[in-house]
Amino acid sequence: MSQTDLQELEDENAVQGEGEEFDEENRLKPEFVRAVRDALEEEDESRAYELVEPLHPADIADLLELLEPGERRELASAITDLMTGDVIAELNDYVRESMVEALPASAVAEIAEQLDTDDAVQLIEDLDDEDQQAVLAEMDAEDRAAIESALAYPEESAGRLMQRELVAVPEHMTVGDLIDYLRDHDDLTTEFWEVFVVDHRHRPIGTCQLSWVMRTPRHIPLTDVMKRDQTLIPTDMDQEEVALRFQKYALISAAVVDESGRLVGQLTVDDIVHIIQEEAGEDALLMSGAGEGDINEPIRDAYFARVRWLIANLGTALVASLIIAAFGAAIEKLVALAILMPVVASIGGNAGTQTMAVTVRAIAMNQLTKSNTRRMLWREFRVALLNGVTVAALIGMATAVIFTPQLGAVITTAVVINIVTAGLAGVAVPVIFERLDQDPAVASSVFVTMITDSMGFFAFLGLAVAAGLAV
Amino acid sequence: MSQTDLQELEDENAVQGEGEEFDEENRLKPEFVRAVRDALEEEDESRAYELVEPLHPADIADLLELLEPGERRELASAITDLMTGDVIAELNDYVRESMVEALPASAVAEIAEQLDTDDAVQLIEDLDDEDQQAVLAEMDAEDRAAIESALAYPEESAGRLMQRELVAVPEHMTVGDLIDYLRDHDDLTTEFWEVFVVDHRHRPIGTCQLSWVMRTPRHIPLTDVMKRDQTLIPTDMDQEEVALRFQKYALISAAVVDESGRLVGQLTVDDIVHIIQEEAGEDALLMSGAGEGDINEPIRDAYFARVRWLIANLGTALVASLIIAAFGAAIEKLVALAILMPVVASIGGNAGTQTMAVTVRAIAMNQLTKSNTRRMLWREFRVALLNGVTVAALIGMATAVIFTPQLGAVITTAVVINIVTAGLAGVAVPVIFERLDQDPAVASSVFVTMITDSMGFFAFLGLAVAAGLAV
Repeated sequence: MSQTDLQELEDENAVQGEGEEFDEENRLKPEFVRAVRDALEEEDESRAYELVEPLHPADIADLLELLEPGERRELASAITDLMTGDVIAELNDYVRESMVEALPASAVAEIAEQLDTDDAVQLIEDLDDEDQQAVLAEMDAEDRAAIESALAYPEESAGRLMQRELVAVPEHMTVGDLIDYLRDHDDLTTEFWEVFVVDHRHRPIGTCQLSWVMRTPRHIPLTDVMKRDQTLIPTDMDQEEVALRFQKYALISAAVVDESGRLVGQLTVDDIVHIIQEEAGEDALLMSGAGEGDINEPIRDAYFARVRWLIANLGTALVASLIIAAFGAAIEKLVALAILMPVVASIGGNAGTQTMAVTVRAIAMNQLTKSNTRRMLWREFRVALLNGVTVAALIGMATAVIFTPQLGAVITTAVVINIVTAGLAGVAVPVIFERLDQDPAVASSVFVTMITDSMGFFAFLGLAVAAGLAV
Repeated sequence: MSQTDLQELEDENAVQGEGEEFDEENRLKPEFVRAVRDALEEEDESRAYELVEPLHPADIADLLELLEPGERRELASAITDLMTGDVIAELNDYVRESMVEALPASAVAEIAEQLDTDDAVQLIEDLDDEDQQAVLAEMDAEDRAAIESALAYPEESAGRLMQRELVAVPEHMTVGDLIDYLRDHDDLTTEFWEVFVVDHRHRPIGTCQLSWVMRTPRHIPLTDVMKRDQTLIPTDMDQEEVALRFQKYALISAAVVDESGRLVGQLTVDDIVHIIQEEAGEDALLMSGAGEGDINEPIRDAYFARVRWLIANLGTALVASLIIAAFGAAIEKLVALAILMPVVASIGGNAGTQTMAVTVRAIAMNQLTKSNTRRMLWREFRVALLNGVTVAALIGMATAVIFTPQLGAVITTAVVINIVTAGLAGVAVPVIFERLDQDPAVASSVFVTMITDSMGFFAFLGLAVAAGLAV
């Protein structure tokens, strides 16, 4: 696109995320953030307002996250009328929490009343009980009741996530009836992509995509244009499961039903997208033992989340040390063993991590089930054998040249054994955790590393002693 | 939900993913897969058909993936008329590729013609040139032209991903005009959630959500109900960037524009959801060096993807070995050094991986920019210091008791140094790769491990020698 065309386009339409505030990856430029900071420092509130005003709510939220905690409060007070519910909903959980805690209950209540139930719940759920009650007390009865009933569902369940605002119509309506109903009812939500058709007990019997309705003459009954196959989400379904359904069945919205099958809310894909993203991304963090791994998490929380796994890792490292200690006499006689043993352990650990990452991902995507676990093990055994032979040949030759051919043979064998062990452990450990109803991403690393470290030191040192290299 | 209610609900509505074929996590039960396998083995095609017929296309795709390659072909030929475009589109890339390669060009062309451009492109893009030409030659001119022009865009770009089927109308239309236009044009796509309003040069000037249109009286002009702020996606935008925009601005669909700003296609969230999921999940695989990490990837490809990183890891392990070798004499004199040195390296590696995972994620989410890198480094320094002191105290005390207080002091210092180094490297390495326009997830692991291993051995052995413990 030529520069002039682009400029013209921008002048005509406010194109989101393409203004001069943004770099080529749609991030706010450091110079822009600097300018806002300078305005705040000089207490020039109107300048700060002018800078922020053209931004989309999602970008205002990004900007707040990039600022220091103190600056966030200054900016928020400079742009009060731009701090809409949409900005609040887009904020990172920790940043929102710390900003909301600084506000009086009445202000929080006022923001919550602007929001759809799902966003209002998100705003309030992390407050402590006392603050929660204070905010709810300030809200009008209807909104309060909606939020209270959402909070009664478990965290991360469909009941918590759903919005109560939806369009549901009885099955006898025609297309024309529906259009008239929508035009006549100003109080309906504007955020809907499908209309739910319900029976006399308010149970969903079908879903109408708006595009089908709009293409159909007025006299046709809705039951002729609705899709009867639908994905009903029970209120207690976990968000991870909800995300997988949306993805698998390419849903735009879905009906949420209570225990008796009655329609109580809807979920729309724009909310689920955040969850899909979160659930898909969290495995990398969990496998590394970094907990939630949010860069806005308070340091105290980050410390506790991570130190647990470092201590667990210390435990597994000590197991490896015990194995080395058992071969202490051999190492004293042949110091080359000490020099080479970390290589065997490290390569095994790396191979195990590779297989584990693949397995954890496949489990998360529901691709690995009892029906194909054996095939997966066999597959990973073969990949590990190929990898093992390649890497072992390289290190074996180098060792034979630098040290002795005998030591080369020992390290070759040890590396093959360790990489194959790593491949099998990389599948087996997460699968076993999954069968025990534990999250395979959380604890697999520690076990796989323990297995590959121990096996690495044991195979290498043990074979060296067995071959009589250290007498 | 009681058993009888559930049964009743299922009888009335075909509830997706809730039938008896599924376990509680919406995966096909092993018994069901077994039953299909048995039917295929007994060459009872009608039994296989009967079993598969009630499934949603996405579940048929899952079933095919769970079967062995030979069984897949048998099942496909038993259920030809259920093997719709939707099933093909839902299949894993590798499974689709291997199944499509087994089909004659005319059959592939027939399937492609049923599909929207984006799905047809996905079907054809992985075929080799010759097969691609053969399939295109069998297609009718219009479909062929659409696919050829999509294939002209780079892989993973918006141009490849977009569907050409969309609804675009001139700006002078009213709500009533639009409804009449939709009712009169049978050939329009049914898959649209928003209508694009374009100027006389076919450049998008606004977007109408169908829900707003339906709630508005017929005489109102579309320009009064359309949203002028819109996210325009250039055809050459990378899919990762597209996914971030959809997420950030909560988009349901977006207009794709060519170099001169003309509307050429649309992207809808149901297609982008797969990409969001893929992009968010791939970092765990990339960081582990497992490449794409797809369990359906041919073994040869998995071998090449992984062995590269194992060999790179071998290189970094050898650097560590050189450091150990430099302290060979000290180890010969005090074998406790050999026993404890892997602990120091391992803990550092673990801490580095934690920080790296957090950093890579923050970069992928556009949360970490030049504006807050320094804050992030300072934050991770503090977390590392807390972690380092905690873990070092534990291992230091144990060492002091089992070996000597001097060695305890040495290992304590070495662990603190290594964990702090790990924390800083865990931020710095991915940030540097990102600034060099390299994917931070791909190569960071190797470098962070090299730094923590080397520093672990060097700090521990060096301090021990400096303290005169191995003379």
